[in-house]
Amino acid sequence: MTDRNDPDPKLRHSRRRFLTGAAGLSAAALTGDRAFAGNPKNLPPNVPDWTRQLGDGVASRPYGKPSQYEAHVLRRDVAWLTASPQSSVSFTPLHELDGIITPNGLCFERHHGGIAEIDPEDYRLIIHGLVEKPLIFTLADLKRMPRVNRIHFLECAANSGMEWKGAQLNGCQYTHGMVHCVEYTGVPLRVLLAEAGVKPNAKWLLAEGADAAAMTRSIPLAKALDDCLVAYRQNGEMLRPEQGYPARLVVPGWEGNVWVKWLRRLKLGDEPWFAREETSKYTDLMESGKARQFTFVMDAKSVITSPSPQAPLRHKGFTVISGLAWSGRGKVTRVDVSLDGGKNWRKARIDGLQLDKACVRFYAETEWSGSEMLLQSRAIDETGYVQPSKNDLRKIRGVNSIYHNNGIQTWLVKPDGEVENVEVS
Amino acid sequence: MTDRNDPDPKLRHSRRRFLTGAAGLSAAALTGDRAFAGNPKNLPPNVPDWTRQLGDGVASRPYGKPSQYEAHVLRRDVAWLTASPQSSVSFTPLHELDGIITPNGLCFERHHGGIAEIDPEDYRLIIHGLVEKPLIFTLADLKRMPRVNRIHFLECAANSGMEWKGAQLNGCQYTHGMVHCVEYTGVPLRVLLAEAGVKPNAKWLLAEGADAAAMTRSIPLAKALDDCLVAYRQNGEMLRPEQGYPARLVVPGWEGNVWVKWLRRLKLGDEPWFAREETSKYTDLMESGKARQFTFVMDAKSVITSPSPQAPLRHKGFTVISGLAWSGRGKVTRVDVSLDGGKNWRKARIDGLQLDKACVRFYAETEWSGSEMLLQSRAIDETGYVQPSKNDLRKIRGVNSIYHNNGIQTWLVKPDGEVENVEVS
Repeated sequence: MTDRNDPDPKLRHSRRRFLTGAAGLSAAALTGDRAFAGNPKNLPPNVPDWTRQLGDGVASRPYGKPSQYEAHVLRRDVAWLTASPQSSVSFTPLHELDGIITPNGLCFERHHGGIAEIDPEDYRLIIHGLVEKPLIFTLADLKRMPRVNRIHFLECAANSGMEWKGAQLNGCQYTHGMVHCVEYTGVPLRVLLAEAGVKPNAKWLLAEGADAAAMTRSIPLAKALDDCLVAYRQNGEMLRPEQGYPARLVVPGWEGNVWVKWLRRLKLGDEPWFAREETSKYTDLMESGKARQFTFVMDAKSVITSPSPQAPLRHKGFTVISGLAWSGRGKVTRVDVSLDGGKNWRKARIDGLQLDKACVRFYAETEWSGSEMLLQSRAIDETGYVQPSKNDLRKIRGVNSIYHNNGIQTWLVKPDGEVENVEVS
Repeated sequence: MTDRNDPDPKLRHSRRRFLTGAAGLSAAALTGDRAFAGNPKNLPPNVPDWTRQLGDGVASRPYGKPSQYEAHVLRRDVAWLTASPQSSVSFTPLHELDGIITPNGLCFERHHGGIAEIDPEDYRLIIHGLVEKPLIFTLADLKRMPRVNRIHFLECAANSGMEWKGAQLNGCQYTHGMVHCVEYTGVPLRVLLAEAGVKPNAKWLLAEGADAAAMTRSIPLAKALDDCLVAYRQNGEMLRPEQGYPARLVVPGWEGNVWVKWLRRLKLGDEPWFAREETSKYTDLMESGKARQFTFVMDAKSVITSPSPQAPLRHKGFTVISGLAWSGRGKVTRVDVSLDGGKNWRKARIDGLQLDKACVRFYAETEWSGSEMLLQSRAIDETGYVQPSKNDLRKIRGVNSIYHNNGIQTWLVKPDGEVENVEVS
């Protein structure tokens, strides 16, 4: 017997913590609800249908789907947010997920010209510009190149963007759901660039998508040569169409719009291209009227996913506060949780993998008496950076911004267990 | 610029390895196929439809699906193998995957009475027998208990079982596809058992499913208290119905049939129950006529997934041999690859995560001249155990066995790139 699965080291010293331990869940609460002699509504059905009858066989679902009882677990959009569904966003249902891996069917979407449906036989990736030898790769070429597997978060620069002006949206799916985290398989970009031979005066890389928006971003060559991938798989299978099938750029830790989907072109140059998506969009308008440009890195951030407005508390007594944290600058090393709007903080338990530029899952076991709580979380990364309050961010950045809001989120838990998005001063 | 994504340390010392390096892929082969001035068939289409027209919007796919061009990537069954699809198996398409995470829709299935479709509101888990206080948990109860996240492989005891009698099935999907690897979220079993209070004379645990087969297995208490989980999520979302929705047992490193799905009952006792699935089935019949029982652990194993019979070689020159390895006794520490049927071995590159009782992904970059190859891989785990040859296994176990075949797999690559399942003496 080892202790590696202990949710909390304290568990090792008490066999009965949740009945009688310091967290205070009373024995009556448990035995009253759960013992055989307890509440009759908790008795199991008397030989239910699913035990009486054979279920469907293996051939019925060659590509599996979720249970019919999970049909509410969906990406959701906000129709009024954008002019058309092709230039819009759908949000990951973070409040319905746990762990760090996002299932492929629920990864948020952000398109500028709708979902390109590319025939993989006709897919080409071109590398040109300041290279010794321009190259065209087919998908088969990419698939026989050396490849690596990396788990990374992807966050849209505009995630939480509505919250710059105050608490707006009631649910972490909408306030924080433009983030997901999957395992990518792809070719290191520097391997492809080495094939073409980067000329000494090249300093920037233009990445262009094959979608109707021809989404285009400039990326410093140093980042391209560091940890970027041309990925064609997520969570083992080929990329989903809405994630750039058959190939996309992976730019670990940087804002999602530079992870160009449906990648068709990489051009080497000696300066950035000042494309539409890095001039009129994806810049940060400061209070002075000047705009910050090329603010690529997504700083450390976290959110409590349960309880949250879409996942209210339904029981008093023992419960687990849970959430996600991530940092574009490396590993998340600690997450703190506050139950009183930031007056007092306790260290949360980070459980599972703690990987570079990937989500971590955190938990804070607690007892809820039915009194109000102001829940907050803050992430701390390996650079020592501490996730700031929204007001501290506003002091520096003003409230003209749309992008790069990594301020601390506050959820008000009310006595009836319902949860609201609120601001604290 | 760091080196952490280098697929091979040798890459650091050569900018142009795939053009001119030791692996020998000729510059002509690349530039002839790939340069702008090269083969006209490699030119991209002249403004393809997906760039001319807006694609579908975000609201069109609230739960995403793979590309229409990946419709062949499916779990597949072998109809003649079993009496009915409800007592059958479907296989993971390993040859179509990479990395270590299996997407939920493609995890192999093995049912004894079909897929139970359980209403989560009526789900109950009972803990009784040699406990101080019998308990009934609802799903909501389980969801508010302390939880952990673990990535583990799950392998059916019968995986590769057909191969005991010689090379039978032409494709790693069929020879090795009863394995998958996902991130589970669940409650440590020992936390639940501590709630009930295990009596000192308890030594075994009976786990029973709520499906029509009431799938039942005896598990030593020491394992239950070590690293087992009652899991309700895989890869973030709720378990799929065919994987035991809403809750299953996770028994890391042990044969799949003890990972009881649709888990409804845990009974503590002082000896095993000798249930049908541990007497008439899931025992290993030896040459002597005696059977080994309770052979729970899945020993170290590996398979080359590409090239393989369903994934033939389509190009001469540089290619990447790739596969999966796993061990029920801990971490895989090394994988060797042979191109000549086991005469010579080279160390493969393990890329990505190397976790306890989880799949690892290995690669061996090579050049294929078009001559025959006899591809093999062998896994070595942290106990020092080396995956044996099939013949070495047969010397000890005879050929009456169905289960626990972890022998080395051989693929014959023929001059035309087609691949066959063969045996080497």
